[in-house]
Amino acid sequence: MNFKTYIEATGKRGVELARIADQVSRDSGVTIAVAPQFTDLKTVTEAVEIPVFSQHIDPIKPGAYTGHVLADAVKAAGAYGTILNHSEKRIKISEIEEVLSLAKLSDLATLVCTDTPGVSAAVASLSPDMIAIEPPDLIGTGVAVSIARPELITNAIKRIRSVNGSVEILCGAGVSTADDVSKALQLGTHGVLVSSSVVKGKSPGQVLENMTDEVLRSK
Amino acid sequence: MNFKTYIEATGKRGVELARIADQVSRDSGVTIAVAPQFTDLKTVTEAVEIPVFSQHIDPIKPGAYTGHVLADAVKAAGAYGTILNHSEKRIKISEIEEVLSLAKLSDLATLVCTDTPGVSAAVASLSPDMIAIEPPDLIGTGVAVSIARPELITNAIKRIRSVNGSVEILCGAGVSTADDVSKALQLGTHGVLVSSSVVKGKSPGQVLENMTDEVLRSK
Amino acid sequence: MNFKTYIEATGKRGVELARIADQVSRDSGVTIAVAPQFTDLKTVTEAVEIPVFSQHIDPIKPGAYTGHVLADAVKAAGAYGTILNHSEKRIKISEIEEVLSLAKLSDLATLVCTDTPGVSAAVASLSPDMIAIEPPDLIGTGVAVSIARPELITNAIKRIRSVNGSVEILCGAGVSTADDVSKALQLGTHGVLVSSSVVKGKSPGQVLENMTDEVLRSK
Amino acid sequence: MNFKTYIEATGKRGVELARIADQVSRDSGVTIAVAPQFTDLKTVTEAVEIPVFSQHIDPIKPGAYTGHVLADAVKAAGAYGTILNHSEKRIKISEIEEVLSLAKLSDLATLVCTDTPGVSAAVASLSPDMIAIEPPDLIGTGVAVSIARPELITNAIKRIRSVNGSVEILCGAGVSTADDVSKALQLGTHGVLVSSSVVKGKSPGQVLENMTDEVLRSK
Repeated sequence: MNFKTYIEATGKRGVELARIADQVSRDSGVTIAVAPQFTDLKTVTEAVEIPVFSQHIDPIKPGAYTGHVLADAVKAAGAYGTILNHSEKRIKISEIEEVLSLAKLSDLATLVCTDTPGVSAAVASLSPDMIAIEPPDLIGTGVAVSIARPELITNAIKRIRSVNGSVEILCGAGVSTADDVSKALQLGTHGVLVSSSVVKGKSPGQVLENMTDEVLRSK
Repeated sequence: MNFKTYIEATGKRGVELARIADQVSRDSGVTIAVAPQFTDLKTVTEAVEIPVFSQHIDPIKPGAYTGHVLADAVKAAGAYGTILNHSEKRIKISEIEEVLSLAKLSDLATLVCTDTPGVSAAVASLSPDMIAIEPPDLIGTGVAVSIARPELITNAIKRIRSVNGSVEILCGAGVSTADDVSKALQLGTHGVLVSSSVVKGKSPGQVLENMTDEVLRSK
Repeated sequence: MNFKTYIEATGKRGVELARIADQVSRDSGVTIAVAPQFTDLKTVTEAVEIPVFSQHIDPIKPGAYTGHVLADAVKAAGAYGTILNHSEKRIKISEIEEVLSLAKLSDLATLVCTDTPGVSAAVASLSPDMIAIEPPDLIGTGVAVSIARPELITNAIKRIRSVNGSVEILCGAGVSTADDVSKALQLGTHGVLVSSSVVKGKSPGQVLENMTDEVLRSK
Repeated sequence: MNFKTYIEATGKRGVELARIADQVSRDSGVTIAVAPQFTDLKTVTEAVEIPVFSQHIDPIKPGAYTGHVLADAVKAAGAYGTILNHSEKRIKISEIEEVLSLAKLSDLATLVCTDTPGVSAAVASLSPDMIAIEPPDLIGTGVAVSIARPELITNAIKRIRSVNGSVEILCGAGVSTADDVSKALQLGTHGVLVSSSVVKGKSPGQVLENMTDEVLRSK
């Protein structure tokens, strides 16, 4: 669950949202991770027990990099892992391998976003912990990739598996309902990336509960 | 005092460093502000009474901007202001006016870094609260701009004052000793930007004390 | 007249378009400059007598900069000047002064694009030869800035003149008809920046003739 | 042979250099390709018969992209192919697949630069025509990657071949002498990328002749 820079997920409201996810995760037994903003990372990690992700880290070691995001700082704030290469924060191909290596050194799990089967395979060959397939044009639309373009997901899984047998595969973009989640799991993914549909919805807890119910039913 | 992404100023060590600055500032009566990393902003603002700055904010309003730094989030973390356009995080000219306006809306003081008299004047015409003149090639060298290129500072002040009578002017890059501070004030600046000389030094508190002593003597 | 990367202004079609502008300029006595793509610069400068501009140059001196655009190369191709900081190719504030200086060394006239009165004043203090005020949201709309937001232009002119008495001022974005040109000149600008309305129109020569007729009438 | 933005390879001097390469290639029967600056592309393609590459193209289709480099424009200038992702012009991972597809549509051969075995494999899974392995820290040093880090090349070849059986593999960075070329071919590459050692040398023709002699001897 990516908090992005939505005002509904900033500061105290971000901590509150993380607490709701924490509760739903504990009640259901289904893993939910949250990715709050940098400035809220520490408060959130102190408030919940579920895994907390940074939304990005920069390809830098400690040093003179004003305004950058250091893996060690994210780790010191209690993060479990980090999102990388989100479509709203793409990085250069030569940086991905470097950042994956820096994250590993700081013991941070890595979730790299991709958009096509080809890019998914390219990233898979760099061995991140997770890949999230997210066609950018569906993000925020409410039209789930798992429904609208199932073949994109299955092709991506095929291409990924040809070079990497173990990376976990998520799918995102437009995922809004329990049905979208169900379809995503049927296609062979391990989970979903959600954002606006939960963060900006009227009842985030209810939406998350519906989704976790569906996950349990799909098992 | 810019913490950059030095490991000596990350996590708990960043909070400790901020506390030292807080103590020296209170003892001397000289204003010291600190700029920790995003992930440490909240902990630092809770630990000290001196002004805390973010190292950067992005030219965005709340929304779908994964991995970006939102003015509202920085404000919610308790920041007093933000550094902008540091030589390690330059922004586009069309973004500077936008970010200044966003910072103002979030009631954040703005300190914009510049490198030459011309760019200082250009930025001054956009009315930030403070300008810090920092030639990048002297940063981290221990050779202070106020000693090595006094005419750059005086020219920049002249150019700035021709378009803006009220912006506060700081100087940075290589500022390491009380003498550097003294010289900077003599040239007509209101203060200095320091980083590695304090952050990475053996005794940050001692260096800050020497500098604040000099400020009091210069009055 | 900015050719951008429109297919109608690429390769031979770009040369043809430049020839039309050359003819209209000679017939009317009104200055028209063209800005073709980098790859067409030399062929265009050899085909016409009107001033030819590059669409951009990079802030680099000769050296190891694969894929960059060197002022000397643009000059060697016969260019008269260069556009800088177009809204589709914004540069950092610290780069603008550097590029202006490099362009001057290569004897290239400089036209810097801006979007607001504040940014126009900031750029004006760096002394380019020309400033083109172009609010990006009107570009390509057919709604001319001179009609839709005359006060933006007059405010920008006022702000520019407070720091720079000699820079030539153009206005662009949405300029499509002779009326738009007329209005722009009435507001006190020296000319206009046009692109899609001419480049992608059915009869570029006719549109240019209407505009130059209007310029002559406005004198 | 990458001309970069060296002054020795700009304008007429670039055409002259390309003619020398053309002559050596025809005399020896060894393929040499040249990559001049955008502004010299057309003049060079008209002056020589050897393949001419662009140094970069942007991930754009025809449209409103001032200052960008369009595949169609490069093709219209007579180019045979394009370099992509050079260490001096890195692109985002999501852009590489897009640019490869645009290049293919414009019938341009593609040569993608990489730095490590991992990134080489990642790029290989996107099926460019050629990959050039170039560790950036050796570029321009005169210390050839084929001599200094042979295992980097052999590992990269192994990783590339595990995902792509047909892409041609070059090696670059520091390649200066016939011996460097010989070693590169022995390691299993199909050729080399050269730049400063030839472009900035006293006798480009002589260096190229020595290298092509070595290629013929290595067969």
